[in-house]
Order: sequence, then structure tokens, then C-alpha cells
Amino acid sequence: MGLETLFTPRRVAVVGATEREGSVGRAVMRNMLDSFEGETVPVNPNAESVLGREAYPDVASVPGEVDLAVVVVPGRVAVDVVRGIAEAGVENVVVITAGFGETGSEGARRERELRAVAEEHDLDLVGPNSLGIISTPAGVNATFGPENALEGSISFMSQSGAFITAVLDWANDRGIGFKDVVSLGNKAVLDERDFVEAWGDDEGTDVVLGYLEGITDGASFIRTAREVTAETPIVLVKSGRTEAGASAAASHTGTIAGSEAAYEAGLEQAGVVRAENVQELFDAASILAGQPLPETDSVAVVTNAGGPGVMATDAIGDSGLSLASFADETLARFEEALPEEANIYNPVDVIGDAPVDRFAEAIEIAMDDPNVGAVCVVTCPTAVLTFDDLASAVVGRQAESGLPVATCFMGGERTESAREILGEAGIPTYFDPARAVESLDALRSYAEIREREYVEPTTFDVDRERAREILRGAADRGDTRLGVEAMGLLDAYGVPIPEGDVVSSPEEAIEVAESIEGDVVMKIVSPDVLHKSDIGGVRVGVRNDDVYDTYEDLVARAKNYQPDATILGVQVQELLDLEAGIETIAGMNRDPQFGPLVLFGLGGIFVEVLEDTTVRVAPVSEPEAAGMVDDIRAAPLLRGARGRRPVDEERVVEVIQRLSQLVTDFPAILELDVNPLVATPDGATAVDIRLTIDPDEL
Amino acid sequence: MGLETLFTPRRVAVVGATEREGSVGRAVMRNMLDSFEGETVPVNPNAESVLGREAYPDVASVPGEVDLAVVVVPGRVAVDVVRGIAEAGVENVVVITAGFGETGSEGARRERELRAVAEEHDLDLVGPNSLGIISTPAGVNATFGPENALEGSISFMSQSGAFITAVLDWANDRGIGFKDVVSLGNKAVLDERDFVEAWGDDEGTDVVLGYLEGITDGASFIRTAREVTAETPIVLVKSGRTEAGASAAASHTGTIAGSEAAYEAGLEQAGVVRAENVQELFDAASILAGQPLPETDSVAVVTNAGGPGVMATDAIGDSGLSLASFADETLARFEEALPEEANIYNPVDVIGDAPVDRFAEAIEIAMDDPNVGAVCVVTCPTAVLTFDDLASAVVGRQAESGLPVATCFMGGERTESAREILGEAGIPTYFDPARAVESLDALRSYAEIREREYVEPTTFDVDRERAREILRGAADRGDTRLGVEAMGLLDAYGVPIPEGDVVSSPEEAIEVAESIEGDVVMKIVSPDVLHKSDIGGVRVGVRNDDVYDTYEDLVARAKNYQPDATILGVQVQELLDLEAGIETIAGMNRDPQFGPLVLFGLGGIFVEVLEDTTVRVAPVSEPEAAGMVDDIRAAPLLRGARGRRPVDEERVVEVIQRLSQLVTDFPAILELDVNPLVATPDGATAVDIRLTIDPDEL
Repeated sequence: MGLETLFTPRRVAVVGATEREGSVGRAVMRNMLDSFEGETVPVNPNAESVLGREAYPDVASVPGEVDLAVVVVPGRVAVDVVRGIAEAGVENVVVITAGFGETGSEGARRERELRAVAEEHDLDLVGPNSLGIISTPAGVNATFGPENALEGSISFMSQSGAFITAVLDWANDRGIGFKDVVSLGNKAVLDERDFVEAWGDDEGTDVVLGYLEGITDGASFIRTAREVTAETPIVLVKSGRTEAGASAAASHTGTIAGSEAAYEAGLEQAGVVRAENVQELFDAASILAGQPLPETDSVAVVTNAGGPGVMATDAIGDSGLSLASFADETLARFEEALPEEANIYNPVDVIGDAPVDRFAEAIEIAMDDPNVGAVCVVTCPTAVLTFDDLASAVVGRQAESGLPVATCFMGGERTESAREILGEAGIPTYFDPARAVESLDALRSYAEIREREYVEPTTFDVDRERAREILRGAADRGDTRLGVEAMGLLDAYGVPIPEGDVVSSPEEAIEVAESIEGDVVMKIVSPDVLHKSDIGGVRVGVRNDDVYDTYEDLVARAKNYQPDATILGVQVQELLDLEAGIETIAGMNRDPQFGPLVLFGLGGIFVEVLEDTTVRVAPVSEPEAAGMVDDIRAAPLLRGARGRRPVDEERVVEVIQRLSQLVTDFPAILELDVNPLVATPDGATAVDIRLTIDPDEL
Repeated sequence: MGLETLFTPRRVAVVGATEREGSVGRAVMRNMLDSFEGETVPVNPNAESVLGREAYPDVASVPGEVDLAVVVVPGRVAVDVVRGIAEAGVENVVVITAGFGETGSEGARRERELRAVAEEHDLDLVGPNSLGIISTPAGVNATFGPENALEGSISFMSQSGAFITAVLDWANDRGIGFKDVVSLGNKAVLDERDFVEAWGDDEGTDVVLGYLEGITDGASFIRTAREVTAETPIVLVKSGRTEAGASAAASHTGTIAGSEAAYEAGLEQAGVVRAENVQELFDAASILAGQPLPETDSVAVVTNAGGPGVMATDAIGDSGLSLASFADETLARFEEALPEEANIYNPVDVIGDAPVDRFAEAIEIAMDDPNVGAVCVVTCPTAVLTFDDLASAVVGRQAESGLPVATCFMGGERTESAREILGEAGIPTYFDPARAVESLDALRSYAEIREREYVEPTTFDVDRERAREILRGAADRGDTRLGVEAMGLLDAYGVPIPEGDVVSSPEEAIEVAESIEGDVVMKIVSPDVLHKSDIGGVRVGVRNDDVYDTYEDLVARAKNYQPDATILGVQVQELLDLEAGIETIAGMNRDPQFGPLVLFGLGGIFVEVLEDTTVRVAPVSEPEAAGMVDDIRAAPLLRGARGRRPVDEERVVEVIQRLSQLVTDFPAILELDVNPLVATPDGATAVDIRLTIDPDEL
């Protein structure tokens, strides 16, 4: 079931409608009467009529089908009222009433009851603690705010109701319109995922915009958003990005924030364009709603003033865009069209004495160049050109070419009517050249997302049963923190490990050592010895002759360190040529919102000092795993910097995917670290492992 | 001589004034007549009068003293005209005429002539190719632009005239005023340094603002700006920051850009607040002109809406500011003043039903907290509070407390009059909470610059003569690229080097080796062998017994590599325990604008792959050298990360300063690399050196 009827009701009941001045019930009733094209019915057992409309004691008494009930009753009766509404057969409910989860344990209990009622009756319920919803095509303004929205193609959801009030006032001033606006409130039932899904299917929505303080279910949000963003851009401000912000958000909404790294990875994997602040959010929305997507990331800057042209160029350098190189034919045309003092290279400077015709011709020539994906027009006031004429010329050229355009009309009052001309054509204009370029960059971001082809994570042929046995064995022993004794997990999932085995006698140790070519590494295996090196529990380069004594010595050291230590044995392992390799790490931890996050980074000092790591929400696909290697700053080291032989990157990428499959298959694995994962020109080998398990999940 | 009379003339001659419609000469005359309080005299040999004023054939004929001549004559006669002006005794000239260095070699020649005339007569000359100058107190508007500036305390210089036109239109619209405005033009005589100096001494200027595409003389700019910024903030956009931008700037103005790294370091050392774009430039200027400096970097956020409060908090997390922790007494006062549902911790949420009084009281309580250095007020529209009332309350509280305030009044039209109230009190207000916070951050930046105490670079007691001899020796041999044979340079400047010497016979080699404890390192020393390791020209751990043979072998290898190679000898060096140390690099290269740039970074893979280096303009002081160590991302490694012993950081900082002194003393050193400079817990030792010299500078 979609949410169409929520936004396109024919009959809306305002439950708790009243005439009392200053009340929320009056404000909602007033707003609905002012704009709604359908029928608005007040429900109030204590009123005959409200604002001239006949009132009914409850929703069941309302004649005809009610498509949407807006609830503004006091908190203590809200759950019962919603139950009554549901029993009357209404499917859509917006609960404006506050006093739920945001107010402490009593409110949280009430919210659980509300959710139970909604689930029982399969209600599409917005809120509670919501400002309400707006849908402009039918004139639904079921909010108690002072402003209605203008019609437009942006659909906007916000976890802050106050922010919606502010945005509407601001947007109305700028002529920015909306399709639907939703104040999410406490998200007891419907959350961001539901609206993203609904708007993805909605013809009237060109851009989905959101202000979120948290995402309820990260993994399912990613799945839905990934599908939506293949057709419709989603731009989000996720607040609480910083440590300070996250703790402020937590105290404000009770949201338990997942880590910022998880949000960053998850939203990126979902194809969401992320805005850092309000300006970026609406700049991105405006250009996405108004302009076509660029086919290349190359921008032509056309200006009548050198300095501002340089500013635009700097902003291009800061962005993911590039400055277009013009084709020879384009340069020839510029040479013919422009005076000698003009600059025909990008940024094109038509110079200060350019009348509109020359400026417009230069824009046209730039647009004709096959390398040019977008155009940034930058103009300063001059005596020979009026902004209005230039604006009209830009609108014409944009429409003809079908290329996206952003503009920078630098001035105050004298730019106002030009702004309107451009705004009507969906072309953004700013004073600051950097802002015009940044908005083109948002367009590019989304164009790249659109071009992504979604690849399912590879399912490798693994020995899942063997892995389960290893985990069960540990659980049966009561071990929740495992070390090298669990290397078999990796082997079962096809992650290369050094030759060798864990043995429990010196004789076995010799047997294993003899089966391995060359000297071996021996390590004590005990859940009670977490830092093996500290007690001399690791020996590198043991010759076959010394294996017996080394075995006994390692066990003695462990017993000496902790007399009652559980000794699982000694690991006898092939000695890898670490010199030829690069130490990396791969691992996983679980995020409360997004579930398992796979991590990759360079090992050693890089990890500890430079934190050169990256994460993705599991399961990761092959391109996502490859992107992880791209992401780390030290990636060139893996690719043969300093005359090294490049490592087998494909194999590293495969190991990341196999680990992703392992942690996805076993929710019992809470945390996992493969450190080091040694990458060499011939492969990638996991040398050590640590993990924490939750036996109850097995 | 200062520039006072340039900005405060009593009599101004407009040379080339005319009544011709659309001409620059008419526009300047018109602008002057419209606003200038003194006397404006047209000079034109072909006119009796211009715009009702009696015209004179030349400046010499003008009765009375002319304080400023504005030149708008055609380019071909401009130099002669300026000469005539100078000979008439005028000291200040603004050359609006174009057709100089910006137009090619003929123009460049003309510009050199103009500079020669100015130098001969000690003229203070602005331009050529300038839009003109404005100084609001006396109503000087010697520009041909369409707008005059409002009065204010910001003085603004720009290398782009068009940008000034745009800014004035925009600023007038927002009520932003200026003291002086200068279009720098081609900077043939007066440049950014001169205006920074003049405005630093000017009572009427509170903030110096600039848009620059290049700085003519970096070192002298730093010296002047450093003094000015101790009292007056300087905020600059230096465009051409990015590679694309730099090349655009070069083609636009012919500016040969120094490296961005040099600008970044130089402007930082000069105490300049750097803006990345136009919005940042004016946001910083507005708050610096309007608000006092904070005494701490802790900000209190007071809001009536949780969500926008979180946005402000995120922006604080992104900035150099911190979220203030309130004192217990403050929390107690909040508890008393605010309803139970309010958040009394920072960000303080007075909640949506707050009337102005409650909001204002919360602001006051926050301001009383001794930890709070600045306040950010964030408000959304609500039914119980008008923005105007809140604005007035904020203005009152700000004035009483003396703390800086930035505000975010979120809305459109309904915020307009509140904006005016706040604007008149110098309190910035924006829609986006992030922008309000960023402007407070600019204030903090400058507060930190003000608190800096300038320390002269240390002059170490060095053996300058010995260094000069080493350089002369190389120059006499015709060597311009030196290696280990120049280690003596470091020794002469007190930079620790390993024990040892360069020898020219196997017998000498043995003698040196025997004087050194333990095994030695031996390296071939030849200007023809740049990559010694490649030919086996380095031997590590040579025992005394093997020194003779090793000597012969090294020489043989060099001869084998290149039969006519110049062999300067063999270096016999103490074998350092590199395991205990960390390889760093220190070096220098010369920037066309800023002169010698000292570099420091971690060595090895860090430098090559991660480019973890930092630079400063030499000479560097002790705090600047210490700041270089702070700057590198891997600094924790030097400070004992991973259980290492911290290195002797003080000694590293001293080596940087000594190298700075060396390259400052000898302009003949064009480039220098000490790689590695091994930092250990007990010191820092330069193991190898490479440098390039220019013998002509010796």
C-alpha cells in the first residue's frame, strides 16, 4: 500500500477542532478551510460547529468516507481517539498531539500504545508530535503553522517542525514551491523510508528533500533509497554530524545516533546527495528541480569580468567538476565573435564592454562545444548591458541547448527582476560565484549517482557449516572473545590464511612444522592471553629443530602469566615474507542503525596515527569493496608507489567481500578484526584475527 | 609618507573630464560633483567648462593646490599627462586609463614608463587600469562606476574593478558601508601592502578587506600585515587558489602566481584571515566591523527550536569554536527560568512556546556564564513571539554584556525588520545556522591572531664564513648541485650531522673510520652520481677491516657508471641507529612572491604518498617552527604514539630554525633538502643533504 491517499484525501476530519483563539485545533481547521479543495470536517464532542462547519462527536459519526484524520486532541486521550478513528475505517492519521516519546518514560509508554494501535489496524500514521502535513496539489494544509507552501515539485520531510515553519516563510519569499511537506514528528509508525518510497513513486515529486536527526532503520533505508535515487534525487541534511551535534540531537529527540561514519557510508551507498547545511540543502534542491542533469563534469564559465571568472574557476577547482577544454572549432568561433582583448579560453571573458548580444553569443558557442556539460554565467554590472536582457538571453540559450546552467548576477537591487526571470526558468542565480558552481556540483553528484549501475553483492561459495561449527564450539566453551583459534572461520569463507594449524602437543607441532616449507611462526593460543607479544607468546622464524622446545616454552609462559589460563594450544604457521607485502586491516563492527559496517584500511602506524580507514554498510558489492580501496589516502602505496610492485588489489577487494559475507551470514559476530591482512603482489593473506561473538545469536 | 592626502583631498582635478555621454571622463566628473565636499576641477584643453565647472587646459593652470589628480585621458598620452601632473606638484594620482600591462608588450612598456615617472616624482599612484577610488568621509567618488559607497568602517581593495561595482550594488542593498574603496588596477606603483599599511594607521578603518589575485612582494607584505593585524583585522580572498583558478588568474592579469602553499603560509604568518569566497569575505567583514572579539572560543547556543539548535551545534563542531559547558550556577538559573521541557544544557532550548521575555532571559543567563565567549541566537517563527521584539532584546543584551553575538532568524519576509534592528547594532543575522556560526568563527580566528605575540626569529651563533667557503668552493668547481660533500654547511650552522668526513684516499678513509666507534657507512661523493644507491654507491655497516677495499670498490663503481665522473671522494660516516629514530625531511625552495619557503614533514612513504608536509616563509621564528611540527598529520608519531619514546621535538624545532637561518643568509641557495633528518629521543641528525646553488648570488 502506498501513501497516495494520505496526500490526496477527499474528506479530512480534524479531530479536536475548536474555535478557541490561539489553539492548535483552530489553526489546523483554519489552514484546511483556507486551502483544501475537498471537504474539511471538524470533530469535537463538545461543539455543534467549528468555524462555520457542522461538527461531529467522533469520526465514526461523520457521514461519508474520511480519508485522513488529523489529531489535535490532548495527549492523555490521544491513543483512545486514534483507536476510535481506526475502528471507523480511516487509514491515514496525522497525530499533531505532543507528549509522547519526546517527554520521558510516561510518554514513551503512550507512544508504544499508539504504535500498537496503528499496527493492529494497519494505519498510515504520521507523528505524533508533528507539525502536520502539506500537499499542495489538493490544497491540503493539515498543519498549525502560519504559512502554507507554494506549489512546486520538491517534496520535503523534516524531523524538526520548527524548521518547516522557518523554511516555508523563507521559501515563499523566494518563490520556491513544494509538492508535499511532512513533519515527521516522533516517527512512531511512518518514517523517512516510507516517504522516500512514496515520493519515489510520485509523478509530482522531482526532488526529495529531508532534514533528519537520525534514520530509524539504516539497512532498509539504503535499499529503498537506492531504488528511488535511480530516478529521483534525494538530498538530505543529517544533523548531529559532529560529536557535539550528535549529543545535542540525542538530547533533543532521544535519537540514539549511529556513528557518523555509518551515516556517511550508508547515505553514500543509498545514492543520497548529502548537504552539510541549510544553504546547501536548498541550493541543491533548486537546481535539481529546475535544471537537467549534465552529461559530463566539464563546465564552461562565461563572464564579463575577469576577477569573478577566476572566483568561479577556483570554486570549480574545489569541486568535483572540471573546467572544460574547448574544441578547436569552439576557439575559432570565439575568436571570430569576440574582440581581441577577450579571453577565448575557459573561463571565457567577453570583457566589460560586452553588450547582451556578444555575451549571449559566447554562451551559445560554449554550449555548442561537445565537451561542455554545464555552463556557469557570471556577470558584473556594466553600463552597456541590463541584467534583465542578459537573464532572458540565458533562459533562451538554456532552453535551446538543454544544458544545465547556473548563474551569478553580481549586484543588489538591480539584479532582482533578472533573478525572477531566471527563477521562473528554474535557473539558479547567486551573488557568489562559488555558490553557483557548488549548485552545479550538486547536479553533477546526482548525475553520477544516476549513472551508477547497482550490482548485487557477490555470493561466494563458502563452507558456512564449518564456520557455524567453529562459532558454536567457542560458544559451547563459553568463549565470546576469539583469536587465532578462529582462523578456520576465514578459511571456511575462502580468505587465504597462512599454512599451519593449532596443535595441542609438541609432537603435533613438529608434524605440522615439517609439513610447512621453511621456518615457522609459533603463537600461544589462549582466550586469557589477549596481548600475546607482551608475554613473549609469539616466536617468528622457528626452525624445525626448535619446534618442540618452543612449544613447551610458549605454554610455560602462558601458565606463568596466568596459572589458570585456558590454553587452547599453539599455532604453528607458515612464515610469510612480510617485507614484500603491505599490512592492511579489514574488520567489522555493528552500528545500531545500519547493522554490520565493514572496515578497510592500511595497518600499522597508519591505522593508529592517521586513522586511514574507510567503512561501508554490509553486504558490500564488488564495486563498493573496490571503492573502499580507492578511498584510503594511502591507496597509492598499494598501487606501486615508491617503485614497489603493486599488490594484488583484486584479491584484496575479494577478501573484503568475503568478510562482508561472513559477518552478514552470522549476526552472532559482533566485532571482527583481521589485522594484519597482508597484501602482496600475489595475493592477500589474513595473518591474525580477533572477534567477539554473541552466543545467543547462534 | 602616508596616503592620507590620497583619501582626504580638498581639491581634485579630473584630467580628461568631458561632457561626452557614456564617456568615462563624464562619469568620474559626475560622480565627484554628486558627492565630493571639496572642489572638483575639470582639466581638458579642448573644453571651456565641463558640467558647469570651468575647465583648465592642464593641471599646472589650475589655481590653488591640487591634492589629487584623476586621469581618464587616452592611453597613448597618459604617461605624458602624468608627467605634467607630477611636475605641477601633485602628489596623488589615480590612473583610470587602461591599455597598460594588461594589453601586451606595448602596454607593458608604457607601464614601465609610467612607473619611472612616478618613482622620479615620488608619486602615490593608483592604477593604471583602475576603476578609481572612493573615500566616503569627504565624499570622494573618483570612480566611473554606477554606485557610490555608503559610509562605514570597512576599507576595501580589489584587483578586479568589476567586482567593486558588483559589491557596491550588493552592499548598498544591505546597508553595508565603507570607509575607503580602492580599485588596485595594475598596481604599477601602489599595491596591497601600501593600502594595508595606510588603513592600519587609519582611525576610520575597523576592518581591511581585499580581493587579490596576487601579492607583489610577499615578504614585505607579511612584515606590514603582521603589524597591522595586531590592531586591525585583514580579511582577504586570494583568488587563483586552485590550479585551474591560478591559471585563469594568470591569463586574466598576467600575475605570475606563487604557489598556493606559499600564499597559505605567508598569509597565515601575516595574521590575515583568509576567506575562500565572496560570502565568507563579507560575512567575516560584517561581524568584525560590528561585534567585539570573544575572550574564549566557547559558544552558547540559545534557541526556541531543537532542530536548528542541532544545526548550529554541528557547525560549531566543524569550526574552531567549541560548545560552552555551563557553570553549575548557570544551570541552576536556567532551571529556575525555563519550563521543565526546556533543555538547559548547551544548546539551550527555551522551546517553541517561549515568549520574548523567556528567550531574552535565557540569553542573559548564558551571557553571564564566565565560560561563554560568544552567543549564537537561533529562532524559528512561532505564534508567541515577534522577531522584532526578539531582535531588540538581543541588541540590548549584547550591548550590556559586551559579548559578541551572531543570530539566525529563520524566515523570509517576516525577518526583514528584525534584520534591520540587528544590522544597525552590528549583529549579523542569517537564515542558515551554519553561517551565523561561521561568522563567529571568523571573529575567533582574528581574536587568536590578536593574542599572538610576535617573536623575532632567533639568530643562532653560526659559522657563516665556513658556510660561505663551502659554497664558494663548489661554485669555483662549477658545481651547482651539491650532495653529501656539502654536509659541512649543516655543521657550520649547528645542525647535527653524523660523525665522519669526506676523504680522498683509502688511507684517509681508514683513519676516519678508526676514529669512529663501531662500523661505518661509506658513500661515493660525486656530482655526477645523483642516485648513489642505484650504482651500489652506499655501503652500510662497513667494518674497519673492510674500509680500504670498500673505498676502492666505491670509486670503481662510480668510474664504471660514468668514466669521466668527477669523484670528490668517499664519505665515511658514523652508523646511526635508525631503528630508534623517525625519518623526517626538512628543506627549502624559493617562491617568486614570498622568497625562501622552509619545509618540514615526515620522511619515507609519508612524504611521497601522503604529502604530509608543511611550509613557512623564512625566516621562521621558534613558535612558527614549532607550529610546523604541529601541522603535520603524523605529528603524534613524533610524540610517542604506539608506545614509542617521543623524539626530542625541541631539537627538531631548532634544526628547522637553523636551516631557515642558513637559507636566509645565503640567497645563493636555491633549493635545499635534508633527507632524512633523523629524529630520535635524544636529538635530530641530518643524514644526507642535496642543494642547488646559483653561483651568481654568492
